[in-house]
Amino acid sequence: MALLYKASPERASAWQRCLAVEHPSLEFRQWPDIGDAREIEYIIAWESPADLADFPNLRILFSVGAGVDQFDLSRLPPQASLVRMVDTSISASMNEYVVWAVMNLHRDMLAYREDQRVARWAPQPIVSAGRRRVGVMGLGQLGLAVIEALRPFGFERFGWNRSPREIEGVTTYAGSEGLEAFLGQCDILINLLPLTPETRGLLDARLFAALPHGAGLINTGRGGHLIEADMLTALASGQLRGAIVDVFEEEPPAVDHPFWTHPRIVVTPHIASTVQIEGGAAAVAENIRRAEAGSPLLNAVDRQRGY
Amino acid sequence: MALLYKASPERASAWQRCLAVEHPSLEFRQWPDIGDAREIEYIIAWESPADLADFPNLRILFSVGAGVDQFDLSRLPPQASLVRMVDTSISASMNEYVVWAVMNLHRDMLAYREDQRVARWAPQPIVSAGRRRVGVMGLGQLGLAVIEALRPFGFERFGWNRSPREIEGVTTYAGSEGLEAFLGQCDILINLLPLTPETRGLLDARLFAALPHGAGLINTGRGGHLIEADMLTALASGQLRGAIVDVFEEEPPAVDHPFWTHPRIVVTPHIASTVQIEGGAAAVAENIRRAEAGSPLLNAVDRQRGY
Repeated sequence: MALLYKASPERASAWQRCLAVEHPSLEFRQWPDIGDAREIEYIIAWESPADLADFPNLRILFSVGAGVDQFDLSRLPPQASLVRMVDTSISASMNEYVVWAVMNLHRDMLAYREDQRVARWAPQPIVSAGRRRVGVMGLGQLGLAVIEALRPFGFERFGWNRSPREIEGVTTYAGSEGLEAFLGQCDILINLLPLTPETRGLLDARLFAALPHGAGLINTGRGGHLIEADMLTALASGQLRGAIVDVFEEEPPAVDHPFWTHPRIVVTPHIASTVQIEGGAAAVAENIRRAEAGSPLLNAVDRQRGY
Repeated sequence: MALLYKASPERASAWQRCLAVEHPSLEFRQWPDIGDAREIEYIIAWESPADLADFPNLRILFSVGAGVDQFDLSRLPPQASLVRMVDTSISASMNEYVVWAVMNLHRDMLAYREDQRVARWAPQPIVSAGRRRVGVMGLGQLGLAVIEALRPFGFERFGWNRSPREIEGVTTYAGSEGLEAFLGQCDILINLLPLTPETRGLLDARLFAALPHGAGLINTGRGGHLIEADMLTALASGQLRGAIVDVFEEEPPAVDHPFWTHPRIVVTPHIASTVQIEGGAAAVAENIRRAEAGSPLLNAVDRQRGY
């Protein structure tokens, strides 16, 4: 029984160490040293290891992140399950990032960043959190945790999801028929959707036009959600007042990508959330034990829906 | 019975409107149109109106902020009380700012700010909040609220105060004898002390040396707490890894002040907290009613201690 690891090489030895503690009988192999591919029952990967069809006895493909859009599921052997990583450390780091990003927009920190560059002292009036409407798109585990992390500050909170969700203290909307009413409430919009054919390109000119004038955008979903040219146009017109962007279609973005130098865009290098290896290894080992026992897996992905 | 307002002129009419609702019989006068100084029983001020001894019938001097270090208390008529502004809006905006500032340091956002300037994509490893020690100096109302605002993120929390305080889930230290042990625990240090003769210049080389190597500093107290040259030295040596500074001895700081251009310093223009006028006016009116009824005032300052 072997597990193939194909994610950040710098983190491989830590994963190996943690998995050895969690599941001592598991043989750890690191890409590209596959050995006999028929012995590989489990794969932990950030990107797809060449062709998934090369692993005839694969039982579980684990994404090392919360998303699975990087895999070509048509090549996944039919008996194999796909599991995404949702542990408390992913959620905790996402909460930290989103609260930070919301405060950047809520408290005019992008203006102060520019002011510092030119030694300008220009305090802006403070809007109380109760008068600021914050909306989260995508009410899965990460989105629900973010909604909860924003609660103590007293923001007026809104949520949107493909299927209906009820959350105490939060006004929620569902489906394409609820999208425009939701967007009209979002002074600050946080994208936490999974990337699927339906959500690709959702953050476009039409969506920005449905937001209140001067809204702020936080993209912690995927680069593929965002039509970058539309965002630049919305920033230029003032329809968007600022944006915090952690993900790009192409990572890293080119050095002449216009986001780098834009005074109203904060760029971070896909660091909003990451799994802590200890927690990740425990989640992987738990699912392997479940597979061995024939029990239902945790955080299994529906291949049809893509999340 | 007249009240003299001497704070931000742009906010004067909003204060007048709110006070008229809260206490209709109060005559509102705006600096410099004092009229007969003997009629002034109440003053709301950010900076001292010339000589406080000019108001012989002054009953309460209200600071429009949480601090009172801007007043020369030796000139305050002996019968007058001094009240500082502590309402929920000051505390709420301070919480927002401090959480934002802590995340800046906790999540390496100063490095990403520099990286964005040079189009560099360089993700840093994430340290989980449970392994990050955050310390608050000054456990008054603002400090206690900040400690509570940090709780949901799971930081290891420490507090220091002149007199002992017990806070559930927080390791606290008191007095000068407890200071060094406290500082040794602070990966991120937040200063929320009042400015008094004892605390002036407290953030100096000796204090920085007592922090763990690579600590972060957040100064939301007063500019007078900080020895700026010592902070620059500590940043240059790496003893401090970054600083978020909202207050200066001289505001605004000169355009050639070295903090503006420093890659490891974030400067904001004294905006960490401000009173919302509605709440501030209600607090002022409540204390005027108490003075009229001979009841004890809320948030009165001890002239000896200075807070």
